[in-house]
Amino acid sequence: MNLTLAIIFCIIISLAAFLLAGWLYLWIKKQDSSNPKIEKISDLIKSGANTFIRKEYTILAKFAGVVAILILIFLPRPIWNQPNFAAILSNNIAMVFSYLFGTIFSGLAGKIGIFVATIANKKTAEAATRGIAPSFLNGFRGGAVMGMAVVGSSLLGVAVFFWVTKNPTMLLGFSFGASSLALFAKAGGGIFTKTADISADLVGKVELGIPEDDPRNPAVIADNVGDNVGDVAGMGADLFDSHVASLAAAIVMAASIDTSTGSNNVAMVFVFAALGLLSSIIGVMFAKMGKNGNPTRALNLSTYITTGIFALLTLLATLIFKYEWRLYFVTIIGLLVGVIIGITTDYFTNDERKPVRKVAEASKSGPALTIISGMSYGFLSVLPAMIGIAVSAFLAFKIADPLGEGYALFGISIAAVGMLSIVGMIISNDAYGPIVDNARGLAEMGGLGEEVIKITDQLDSAGNTVKAVTKGFAIAAAGLTVISLLAAFKSEVNDAARELGLELIEAFNILDPAVFFGLLIGAAVPAVFSSLLMLGVDRNTRRMVEEIHRQFDEIPGLKEGKEGVMPESDKCIDIATEGALKELLPAGAFAIIITIVVGLIGGVQAIGGFLTGNIVSGVLLALFMSNSGGLWDNGKKYIEAGNFGGKGSDAHKAAVIGDTVGDPFKDTAGPSINTQITVVSLVASLFAIIFLTFSLF
Amino acid sequence: MNLTLAIIFCIIISLAAFLLAGWLYLWIKKQDSSNPKIEKISDLIKSGANTFIRKEYTILAKFAGVVAILILIFLPRPIWNQPNFAAILSNNIAMVFSYLFGTIFSGLAGKIGIFVATIANKKTAEAATRGIAPSFLNGFRGGAVMGMAVVGSSLLGVAVFFWVTKNPTMLLGFSFGASSLALFAKAGGGIFTKTADISADLVGKVELGIPEDDPRNPAVIADNVGDNVGDVAGMGADLFDSHVASLAAAIVMAASIDTSTGSNNVAMVFVFAALGLLSSIIGVMFAKMGKNGNPTRALNLSTYITTGIFALLTLLATLIFKYEWRLYFVTIIGLLVGVIIGITTDYFTNDERKPVRKVAEASKSGPALTIISGMSYGFLSVLPAMIGIAVSAFLAFKIADPLGEGYALFGISIAAVGMLSIVGMIISNDAYGPIVDNARGLAEMGGLGEEVIKITDQLDSAGNTVKAVTKGFAIAAAGLTVISLLAAFKSEVNDAARELGLELIEAFNILDPAVFFGLLIGAAVPAVFSSLLMLGVDRNTRRMVEEIHRQFDEIPGLKEGKEGVMPESDKCIDIATEGALKELLPAGAFAIIITIVVGLIGGVQAIGGFLTGNIVSGVLLALFMSNSGGLWDNGKKYIEAGNFGGKGSDAHKAAVIGDTVGDPFKDTAGPSINTQITVVSLVASLFAIIFLTFSLF
Repeated sequence: MNLTLAIIFCIIISLAAFLLAGWLYLWIKKQDSSNPKIEKISDLIKSGANTFIRKEYTILAKFAGVVAILILIFLPRPIWNQPNFAAILSNNIAMVFSYLFGTIFSGLAGKIGIFVATIANKKTAEAATRGIAPSFLNGFRGGAVMGMAVVGSSLLGVAVFFWVTKNPTMLLGFSFGASSLALFAKAGGGIFTKTADISADLVGKVELGIPEDDPRNPAVIADNVGDNVGDVAGMGADLFDSHVASLAAAIVMAASIDTSTGSNNVAMVFVFAALGLLSSIIGVMFAKMGKNGNPTRALNLSTYITTGIFALLTLLATLIFKYEWRLYFVTIIGLLVGVIIGITTDYFTNDERKPVRKVAEASKSGPALTIISGMSYGFLSVLPAMIGIAVSAFLAFKIADPLGEGYALFGISIAAVGMLSIVGMIISNDAYGPIVDNARGLAEMGGLGEEVIKITDQLDSAGNTVKAVTKGFAIAAAGLTVISLLAAFKSEVNDAARELGLELIEAFNILDPAVFFGLLIGAAVPAVFSSLLMLGVDRNTRRMVEEIHRQFDEIPGLKEGKEGVMPESDKCIDIATEGALKELLPAGAFAIIITIVVGLIGGVQAIGGFLTGNIVSGVLLALFMSNSGGLWDNGKKYIEAGNFGGKGSDAHKAAVIGDTVGDPFKDTAGPSINTQITVVSLVASLFAIIFLTFSLF
Repeated sequence: MNLTLAIIFCIIISLAAFLLAGWLYLWIKKQDSSNPKIEKISDLIKSGANTFIRKEYTILAKFAGVVAILILIFLPRPIWNQPNFAAILSNNIAMVFSYLFGTIFSGLAGKIGIFVATIANKKTAEAATRGIAPSFLNGFRGGAVMGMAVVGSSLLGVAVFFWVTKNPTMLLGFSFGASSLALFAKAGGGIFTKTADISADLVGKVELGIPEDDPRNPAVIADNVGDNVGDVAGMGADLFDSHVASLAAAIVMAASIDTSTGSNNVAMVFVFAALGLLSSIIGVMFAKMGKNGNPTRALNLSTYITTGIFALLTLLATLIFKYEWRLYFVTIIGLLVGVIIGITTDYFTNDERKPVRKVAEASKSGPALTIISGMSYGFLSVLPAMIGIAVSAFLAFKIADPLGEGYALFGISIAAVGMLSIVGMIISNDAYGPIVDNARGLAEMGGLGEEVIKITDQLDSAGNTVKAVTKGFAIAAAGLTVISLLAAFKSEVNDAARELGLELIEAFNILDPAVFFGLLIGAAVPAVFSSLLMLGVDRNTRRMVEEIHRQFDEIPGLKEGKEGVMPESDKCIDIATEGALKELLPAGAFAIIITIVVGLIGGVQAIGGFLTGNIVSGVLLALFMSNSGGLWDNGKKYIEAGNFGGKGSDAHKAAVIGDTVGDPFKDTAGPSINTQITVVSLVASLFAIIFLTFSLF
């Protein structure tokens, strides 16, 4: 298939994904919803989410405007170094557009996700009155709208953009737009959601001993809003960004091979990406659950089906279009390693396995041991994933290397594309989590009864398990993508060096002091970045806890649950919003600025080290935080299911504290690190010429 | 000064250090001690510590025996590849002796430290009845015996060994012996001390609300034993190991330059090291505290004095012996960066600064926020130290580079020597901590009264602050040392490659897949290593908590504190001992074995990446753990001083939980990582030939 056909194929599949998303949306919309109480609460959640998103996007639009001006002046090279206006138009101005389109596409995908999620949650709650199977389907299909919208717009954007510009560097700009928006959206959403969640838990569960989602608690609505703005929109932005980045990196390298050898690797990247989305479409359509089925199994099964279909379709494509077998194997290695990392993550967060049970048991001796043992397993859990990423990168390189110059590093990027091929399915599974979590809240607040809450609890628990798996997957994918972005960085540097008549970069030698200098500082960045986000959550939480205390003290009858007395939920939403917006920029800005500073001091060699340190420590910390967070969450749930004393016991109290510590780990800092490493890598590639020409050493 | 004279100078200074240690020991011994109750408890502590050390060293002796046999067969190259018996004698057998001497010297230094510490603690407690100044002096001089013994034996060992063998590779074997013993001594001691400490706190402070060091608590004696075997012996072993490793790395590189150019760099390394010890001797002799002085200031002042003296003495040496000025500057940069890192660490753990106060304040909202905010500051605290290490390595390289081939990397190693020059003083300050901590316990258990306890509390608090500073220093020193060991590894590999007629290694290129493969796995090792240690503490603690519960339930009158009823402390000591011995080997063995496996799979390139990943993530995690642990400890103390509700308030309870989580961070896992990265680097250098000849890829 030639390049044009491949791109058209991508566009068709993307449109099919949008069609499916539309159909699913209509299906959800026409489901029954008649409970006025739920309707009212759901409206509160929706309007809270919309207000936050509007305010957040307003700030981000201003930020994007500033960045656009900086891009215009400096990227891909300073405007005063361009020979004429035509060059400015086809470089700097085109880059501005690439960047802006990236932000817009990424923002849109998030917006669609929230829109559907805030409808799906109430439908899921009400469907639970009819049984677990229909309730599951509502939750899953709500998530699938997000999945289809995200991957559809990612693929559509990349395909159309490449068709128009024919310039892979512009794709890096597009990807940077998507990533920078994702970075801030995740930071803001993550701070919002965890501020509300932790505050609600601290006062509700720990101090007063009232149940989760109790309508008396002023922070409960804010918590539900947070599920949407943090988990649905933030996570969608994250995987959008990884997907775009993996395609951009692969196309940069494929294009450089194709230019010199006339082969058709770019077309293959597009075909494989389209087949990945097609597999996810099929997987989503066939996902359902038997009447007495297990929701976790249903979610996992659809992932395995999608994986199998993708392997088959790419096999056929390889046969028909005579692609290199070696590249096919590399793709499949990426895919399988992604699945294997997901499974090992599951081991550390599944309540049927040793780690969760041991942590739950440790809670009997108080919260200190809950934290110590949970963190220990979190540290242990990084090993299989790190080995997995290491082995897949190594094999991809070695298998692709014999194909010729440039193929080795292209192999790594195509492994990342393989790993991210089934991302449509992954997002569907992941967005399912916050939807059923919200549904559980609505069922509780709407007074749908114990039986219904139990069903939503079951769905929620499956959501937690699957979420841990998809997060492991997302981190691995980001890791592999960023390794290929490192290769893309080198290729950008050498393109620039060739133009400027400078010596080409052959290696980033660890014993070069500039490389080591960058390495150490790059490694510190994810730690500092996480720290800034968590301190934001901490500050904001304390403000909200005070407000909740004030309400319980000052509103007569609230604590006792007097009929008709309602908390002032909007005040909590305001605090969460304001705090999140204030804490949004520093962490992300720090990561971007320090990259530029290191590059200006140490040049491209320092940046090579910086990116490496950043990837290594970023992947490590992201895995640690996501996994220990998921582990504590499920440890708490395991005790709540009646083990080690059950609800209300000392062990339970300790486990709740563990869960609270895990909240910003797994939903604020941990997953934001993915985006941070991608953004930093893209900044590096875009600034390649600047670093090459203006560095101090 | 020629090499022989320099070595003789080293030996003289080492002997002077031993003389000073002996004099200090006699001074302490003749101090007043008349309280029979304290005498009795102190005997219990002493015998507990001796029993543990005896059992631990028995296991380690067996381990060392096995390693010695493996060394005989395989190192520096397989015995069947040696041409004749003379070669075996001067290589494999010499290496066995180097290794064994390293373990013996390291073990001896630890043993001396414990011996003196268990005397100094009771003298310090009783001196507190006469005021803070004499009490301080007892604590400090007790620590100084350790400082002098450690650095004296390290310098003596290296000097004599090099004089006899004239072979720098043998020094690596000596260093490996010291490090491998340190690794296990710290792991075992760290698990022992934290098992006892956490158990005592969990049941005593958290559950029953009885004071620290209450004689009713069955774990209190074990806790005091732990201070000696974990903090005194363990930390001494750690810095012994860093000091030896820094000298070994510098000498390996200096020798390689001297051989080709005939210059006298090895002599300079010896002279500078001896001057460092001389400065510490002077610093120790002049350390004291005014009647109304501040113990923290007194400790810091002696560090600054030592630093100043060293800078002056090396300046004179450079003038007189005409050493290269560039090397002098590099040495001073290392020294200053060490001090600066210490100061920034102080910012994060000093209770007069924002981080500790914010964490204490967060405790008002419960333990979850104590943990979240403490971890956040812990993550933030890595930045200045990482930048410090990065900048000093970079500058050292750049400044030394113009001196000629090989000087650039030698520059890094001489910066590490500079940083570690004042290590005698650092150890004195550090060992002071557990001694006064123990004295506090003895004052409480011996019933010396509120006033005396208050004095020992003040001394203890200074110990905590200084401990955090010295730990920051130790980690930075280990980091810089290991960077120079990486360079030493390359030089070992190339020596071997030259011998075998293979191609020389020019670089470790990050984009080489083997390097990246090693990098990712190496980065995971410190996390897994910490995890295994902390899980050991966790398991062991739960056993001990059960035992304490049993005693309080079954021994009549114990809880009520009936006159004459004593807990069965020996049972707790037995549990701590048994658990520590059982958990001792796995973590260290894991680190050593995975290094060998990665080398056998990916060869020397993979090991280059592996060491780099290990250093970067090791330094990061060690800083994070040590600093957040110190921060929580001081946050708790800040509340106990009457802030945010003071003792017994909810904030205090939360802060105690934070402190408990921090315990294995700062005293088990964090500082052990230093040793882990050193051991792994030495293993790599020693196995250089094996990896070069036998790797899979």
